[in-house]
Amino acid sequence: MGVTINCDMGEGFGLYECGDDTGLMPFVDIANVACGFHASDPSVMRATVALAARHGVAVGAHPSFPDLQGFGRREMKMDRDELAACLIYQIGALKGFLDEKRLTLNHIKPHGALYGAAMRHEHVANAIADAAQIFDVPLLCMRGTLQEDVYAARGVPFLAEYYADLDYDAAGGLIITRKHEAKDPEEAARRVKRVLLDNKATTIEGTLIDMQADTICVHSDTPGAVDLARAVRQALDEIA
Amino acid sequence: MGVTINCDMGEGFGLYECGDDTGLMPFVDIANVACGFHASDPSVMRATVALAARHGVAVGAHPSFPDLQGFGRREMKMDRDELAACLIYQIGALKGFLDEKRLTLNHIKPHGALYGAAMRHEHVANAIADAAQIFDVPLLCMRGTLQEDVYAARGVPFLAEYYADLDYDAAGGLIITRKHEAKDPEEAARRVKRVLLDNKATTIEGTLIDMQADTICVHSDTPGAVDLARAVRQALDEIA
Amino acid sequence: MGVTINCDMGEGFGLYECGDDTGLMPFVDIANVACGFHASDPSVMRATVALAARHGVAVGAHPSFPDLQGFGRREMKMDRDELAACLIYQIGALKGFLDEKRLTLNHIKPHGALYGAAMRHEHVANAIADAAQIFDVPLLCMRGTLQEDVYAARGVPFLAEYYADLDYDAAGGLIITRKHEAKDPEEAARRVKRVLLDNKATTIEGTLIDMQADTICVHSDTPGAVDLARAVRQALDEIA
Amino acid sequence: MGVTINCDMGEGFGLYECGDDTGLMPFVDIANVACGFHASDPSVMRATVALAARHGVAVGAHPSFPDLQGFGRREMKMDRDELAACLIYQIGALKGFLDEKRLTLNHIKPHGALYGAAMRHEHVANAIADAAQIFDVPLLCMRGTLQEDVYAARGVPFLAEYYADLDYDAAGGLIITRKHEAKDPEEAARRVKRVLLDNKATTIEGTLIDMQADTICVHSDTPGAVDLARAVRQALDEIA
Repeated sequence: MGVTINCDMGEGFGLYECGDDTGLMPFVDIANVACGFHASDPSVMRATVALAARHGVAVGAHPSFPDLQGFGRREMKMDRDELAACLIYQIGALKGFLDEKRLTLNHIKPHGALYGAAMRHEHVANAIADAAQIFDVPLLCMRGTLQEDVYAARGVPFLAEYYADLDYDAAGGLIITRKHEAKDPEEAARRVKRVLLDNKATTIEGTLIDMQADTICVHSDTPGAVDLARAVRQALDEIA
Repeated sequence: MGVTINCDMGEGFGLYECGDDTGLMPFVDIANVACGFHASDPSVMRATVALAARHGVAVGAHPSFPDLQGFGRREMKMDRDELAACLIYQIGALKGFLDEKRLTLNHIKPHGALYGAAMRHEHVANAIADAAQIFDVPLLCMRGTLQEDVYAARGVPFLAEYYADLDYDAAGGLIITRKHEAKDPEEAARRVKRVLLDNKATTIEGTLIDMQADTICVHSDTPGAVDLARAVRQALDEIA
Repeated sequence: MGVTINCDMGEGFGLYECGDDTGLMPFVDIANVACGFHASDPSVMRATVALAARHGVAVGAHPSFPDLQGFGRREMKMDRDELAACLIYQIGALKGFLDEKRLTLNHIKPHGALYGAAMRHEHVANAIADAAQIFDVPLLCMRGTLQEDVYAARGVPFLAEYYADLDYDAAGGLIITRKHEAKDPEEAARRVKRVLLDNKATTIEGTLIDMQADTICVHSDTPGAVDLARAVRQALDEIA
Repeated sequence: MGVTINCDMGEGFGLYECGDDTGLMPFVDIANVACGFHASDPSVMRATVALAARHGVAVGAHPSFPDLQGFGRREMKMDRDELAACLIYQIGALKGFLDEKRLTLNHIKPHGALYGAAMRHEHVANAIADAAQIFDVPLLCMRGTLQEDVYAARGVPFLAEYYADLDYDAAGGLIITRKHEAKDPEEAARRVKRVLLDNKATTIEGTLIDMQADTICVHSDTPGAVDLARAVRQALDEIA
């Protein structure tokens, strides 16, 4: 596909809405669809898969620790096997909705605290890799982390992400806030170009760090997400 | 397969156990595996699918209304679409564990209040049929009910069940109790033979009613379930 | 208190928000606070009680069927005792946050499908009355319904509601939609005055029906809810 | 009360049972009643409080991380305020059932991973102490741990526990297994006497460590729990 834009989608729940999926879908290549454990429910998942299908957007699973109240942002201690089972369940559930549309699963991207835990705990990264091998799809992950080491060692394919709407520290770490903050779309687009053309990312301190990316992440719940996605889309089109 | 024995399995949850699945599996042909909405959790589902796989038992999904506290025995008002989504989610989740074992889904059997609601509400039966068509598998159901009418009208394949461990009333209705009661294995086996050889079932009043069966249901949480399953197995073997 | 304005509040969940509680609280006398079964969570409940305390607004419990995905709008079949237990749990949980602020429980108002079920099923109304007697507080309910009959027969105090932002049919029934629709504040205020001064409510057909009200309900999730609450507040002040 | 026997109770859920509460209640002084977050549900809580009331057993709350699948044995990262809210909710819910019986809350004992986390994380111990201050009851805890330090520093009353059915290591730490293992009742009773008379506990290595206890914990889900409780009861009676 070349460098893609990926976006967390389907993060509403029941009557609650989260993010302008309809506005974003036209600018996205691959959707990370929530699986009901940090957000979403069966009806939201079905609608989100249908929306992606209409736009020809490839669908990946966005599984989480079981933590609906905390939006999957609270780490839980689970051993490798129970975590792998928890992921297989969520990914399988999403595949049910893909079955309905005769689509195949494109990838897996762990959500929130699970994504973070995979950078610090080998058994977490292994549980994620277990799921990826069962469903035979690549993972999305951050380069230069324990995640990458585990996946590479096991031969599990992965795509490296750059986050267009988050800040990085000098060590290459993401600065996570409880709610995503608005970003200037033009500045975000410039940063994406720098990553793709120069393999350099700007840190919050203004310095440059090495950064490679196969896919650019844009969050749906960042204020101004649609404008940001449009600007990043244009940046990618200009480079291609 | 001929006439099979089906059994609800994997109905434990977390540390809680329910039914002697290990003892029953040798006598069963097809397992109806709980999907986490009335019982079970990802770890229990994974273990149950693995157990079935070791015994060569075919695995079907046993989805429910979302009601863990009530063991799926409390009817909920859900419209057709949200119910269908709820079923696709559960069945997909189970398929995730089948994917791990490279197995295919064998059938769908609705659980508890959902099974009952499908006999009274057309939109419930339709939601179940929607799921069956998406996954292209037969349903388990009771003959002579609205369930059957809806499935037949839509051309959705189904297998008719006879319950070896429940009583029937004169109208052919099941007498459901909060906890299943122990049954005499020999008497159950005799009744199964009568259903298969004479197409007649004995009611709780002692009268006979017409009954056809493609599959015989044995519950795992009935006291003495293993002895009953063994006796029914033997009855089927003698007939075959 | 005279005639009060009551409002369902604290209906967010985790990161999800619902209704402008901060904007509404100044216009409200009594808050019906969600208890975590159709909406809300412990953190939201704590914050909502603290907000009410700052404004001197009396707090009642707004319990529901256990149905977070369906926002408590899907009826569940529960028997009287298990439903009463379910209500005691929720109301007790809310009282925990009132204990923190040294406040007492003011009333109980059943939510959504539970409120509706209490108008049709005696055992539901009885379960609600059981909870009201245990906590020794009045119920909010609609006059001329089975609810009222049950409460009156048992001597359980209740306050009759008029809904300022919903339509009534000729039989006095509420017309419930999945999402509340915006209402003209001035028209709503005029209708409230008619109810309080003439004991008459305007139906969706334009006719008048008898209506008595001890308290006026304004929903927090109706678009324009703050303007509507302000207009109703002013109507009440003019009458007083 | 003098030295008491405390016991975790009401840890069933829906149809699932856990522990012989009926058999144990006669030997127990204070019951730690599960609050629905690691086990139990409103109906189980109501029945457990009623059982305790019939036996004159004082009731405390046994709150947990929100983790029904993991029986509260999986640590979750929650900050002090959201954890305190989570505890207030559970304790309040239990108090609802105490209100019904006109009983007062006796104490709070954190469950499982929460109990363990309070020994390692100050903010967890503080959240527990926050709840204890709101409800003005003592905590149950282990001496010589961070728990005790935090509670003592804040002036929150606590009772020190000795676990009659668990093993201790040389550092005074509990050896926790996924399922509790059977213990010899006579040996357990001897150990309890040694703690109370000599302030010494036997470790799994056979050495003695200092141990003071205000209350002796007996688990309801240990095999042979009733025999063990009877033996410990007798030991306490002999000492008194």
